[in-house]
Amino acid sequence: MKNNINTQPMPGFMELLPQQQMVFNNMIKTIREVYELYGFRPIETPLLERSEVLLAKGSGETDKQIYRFKKGDADISLRFDLTVPLARYVANNQNDLVFPFKIGNIGKVYRGEKPQAGRFREFYQCDFDVIGREELPISYDAEIVAMIYQMFTKLGLNNLKIKINNRKVLNGFFRSLSISNSQDILRIIDKIEKIGKGKVEEELKGIGVSKDTVEKILNFLNIKEDVVKKLKNLDIEDEEFKKGVEELEYVQNQVEIFEIPKEAFEIDLTIARGLDYYTGTVYETILNNYPNFGSVCSGGRYDNLTSFYTSNNYPGVGCSIGLTRLFDCLLKNNLLDIKTETDTQLLVIGMDGYENNATKLGTDLRKENINTEVMNSLKNGLKYANRLKIPIVVIIGEQEAKSNSFTVKDMNSGQQSTLKYDALLKYLRAN
Amino acid sequence: MKNNINTQPMPGFMELLPQQQMVFNNMIKTIREVYELYGFRPIETPLLERSEVLLAKGSGETDKQIYRFKKGDADISLRFDLTVPLARYVANNQNDLVFPFKIGNIGKVYRGEKPQAGRFREFYQCDFDVIGREELPISYDAEIVAMIYQMFTKLGLNNLKIKINNRKVLNGFFRSLSISNSQDILRIIDKIEKIGKGKVEEELKGIGVSKDTVEKILNFLNIKEDVVKKLKNLDIEDEEFKKGVEELEYVQNQVEIFEIPKEAFEIDLTIARGLDYYTGTVYETILNNYPNFGSVCSGGRYDNLTSFYTSNNYPGVGCSIGLTRLFDCLLKNNLLDIKTETDTQLLVIGMDGYENNATKLGTDLRKENINTEVMNSLKNGLKYANRLKIPIVVIIGEQEAKSNSFTVKDMNSGQQSTLKYDALLKYLRAN
Repeated sequence: MKNNINTQPMPGFMELLPQQQMVFNNMIKTIREVYELYGFRPIETPLLERSEVLLAKGSGETDKQIYRFKKGDADISLRFDLTVPLARYVANNQNDLVFPFKIGNIGKVYRGEKPQAGRFREFYQCDFDVIGREELPISYDAEIVAMIYQMFTKLGLNNLKIKINNRKVLNGFFRSLSISNSQDILRIIDKIEKIGKGKVEEELKGIGVSKDTVEKILNFLNIKEDVVKKLKNLDIEDEEFKKGVEELEYVQNQVEIFEIPKEAFEIDLTIARGLDYYTGTVYETILNNYPNFGSVCSGGRYDNLTSFYTSNNYPGVGCSIGLTRLFDCLLKNNLLDIKTETDTQLLVIGMDGYENNATKLGTDLRKENINTEVMNSLKNGLKYANRLKIPIVVIIGEQEAKSNSFTVKDMNSGQQSTLKYDALLKYLRAN
Repeated sequence: MKNNINTQPMPGFMELLPQQQMVFNNMIKTIREVYELYGFRPIETPLLERSEVLLAKGSGETDKQIYRFKKGDADISLRFDLTVPLARYVANNQNDLVFPFKIGNIGKVYRGEKPQAGRFREFYQCDFDVIGREELPISYDAEIVAMIYQMFTKLGLNNLKIKINNRKVLNGFFRSLSISNSQDILRIIDKIEKIGKGKVEEELKGIGVSKDTVEKILNFLNIKEDVVKKLKNLDIEDEEFKKGVEELEYVQNQVEIFEIPKEAFEIDLTIARGLDYYTGTVYETILNNYPNFGSVCSGGRYDNLTSFYTSNNYPGVGCSIGLTRLFDCLLKNNLLDIKTETDTQLLVIGMDGYENNATKLGTDLRKENINTEVMNSLKNGLKYANRLKIPIVVIIGEQEAKSNSFTVKDMNSGQQSTLKYDALLKYLRAN
């Protein structure tokens, strides 16, 4: 390495070869298509924000991980998620936006974590959120489930389970047990998949929950199948609890109308989602064949997105895909269909003295929206087409120019044919 | 403003409303399509780099503007262009890439300049480059002209002039005048459009160029029309000069074969491009109706992209569009067709008790790839469709459910009709 400069990207920063990048870009394209299918509109906020904006909420974890610096007088930070900038955006543009505001937001975010396998310091989040002004119907909570299902199906990952829960149910249940520190308990419950039931029991006792209450909590978390019915049968007289059960039931019923297969959806009372701003439905998504990927799409309902920036009330519901991590998992498990490095449909090679004929053909074909490359060396051209897996090579030399025709080589079969322009065009359109 | 937090983006950071963002995204889509049409492959490099990578070349200007900070032991900077990261990428992946490596690279870059009108601190660059290993045919220099023309035509900006020059011609000409400090002279010439001929004359004299030589330089820069012929007639016996004239002539001849209109192309000897790494063809692009936008697409040929990172030789040629600035200019001159905020084709409204019918119709139509939104309030729904200019609203209530049909309202004409599902689908596809 000249000058001893390390030319690798920094640890935790994903960088792809072109053939991988194409697959990544296609995934983004698919996600955007589903956004549009459901009427979600694009926005894009800067990657840099005033630190006071990003840190308005305050959280020790965020403070440690954030990339923050000064430039002149400005105290600047790189965004660590898309939600906080979205809140600022909504507060700033509240008079110009149409509500409900359905947003499809794809962009990079930054977290200066210790680099480790599967953890990235720069990564794409694909967020989709619906924000209401003062109120937002529960129907959008169901629509989010439909979008998750459609997105992953279109990404070719249809063996999945979308798990939902409702914070109101958890809050009401804890209140019925006269528990006040429900946030701490939620955080512990949230780890149940990772650390197991025994450890959860231990930790709950550790924060002073009585043995009897721990048992009640674990029994509650253990409720599977017919969850709504069983919750109703608990006869808990708490308004928030009842409201939460009603919301769960509504979303569950809608899921059927959205034609989501029964086995792709589940109410799972152990899902809490650590973030304290969720207030209703919460979501996680598991790929059944790759549970070790963790949740590939998570989110929830929040009562007030913009509380740090405006006194108006903007409730919302949304989910996020950590696309960089998902792509990395798929790549490492050989689950990506990385076939080609290019969308080029054919390479035109102009032999010595016939370069202009090649340029002319390329110009004509591009007018027909056919992705065409032109090279002027047979040897280099064939090598190039081979390596990039360009399916068709057209050769123009003396004979072809004289007869006003083209030698067409199918690079897969090796077969050659001689075609006039119209026949060539037809052939290209059929291939 | 609650908590007195400034919710505007920082100065120099563009942030768009959704209807503007849609137009911006469509411009990017168009540029990508032209990349693909010419076989340019996608890459994406991190926005953060080791400072030693970005500053390897060294330049006072860059050092001052760069966003640079420390995180732990790491000395990190935000990239200020796409070219330096591309050089690192090519050096790092040289054994895995197929050459010529045609790259279409679109991404944000950062420059901490004093904010002023039309200057951005965060902006998109759309770069397209062809990199060869050890050599790169001159034909690609012409292909770049064709791509510029096609890109801007597809963006609806076809009243343009692509101006090229050749550094070899300038270098050879200066050598013929026994001038050694040609870099300084190039920098002064480059400002001729901005500061005028008189000031250039003055500045040239200021750095010690004799009156006689200044006159020769100005006469040379003044050559218009039949430039190649006139350059040949100068009878300058300098190999580099001759090579440069030959290259200019080649590109000019190719431009015709690429079917670029004569008036959209020009050889302009005053174009020097300040950057010292250009070694052959240089490009600038002017929108004839908006010369004050400056060059909207510029670039050139460079002999060695990666000299700071590897001892192998990678010559290249490429151009860049500063898309954020271009978009801002178009926006401020009301040249953008900002019509709608959404790609939603219809809104389905379910009346009280018929919400599920609406959800069901939305589900069916999305299966047909029709962008569909669903709402459950007639008043809110019509207001929403009006504000977002959704062209069609479908209403489902008791009557519709009973007769298994849909009330379809054309929001532009106000006309209503009642259609069965198949007729609705036909109607939507026709609209």
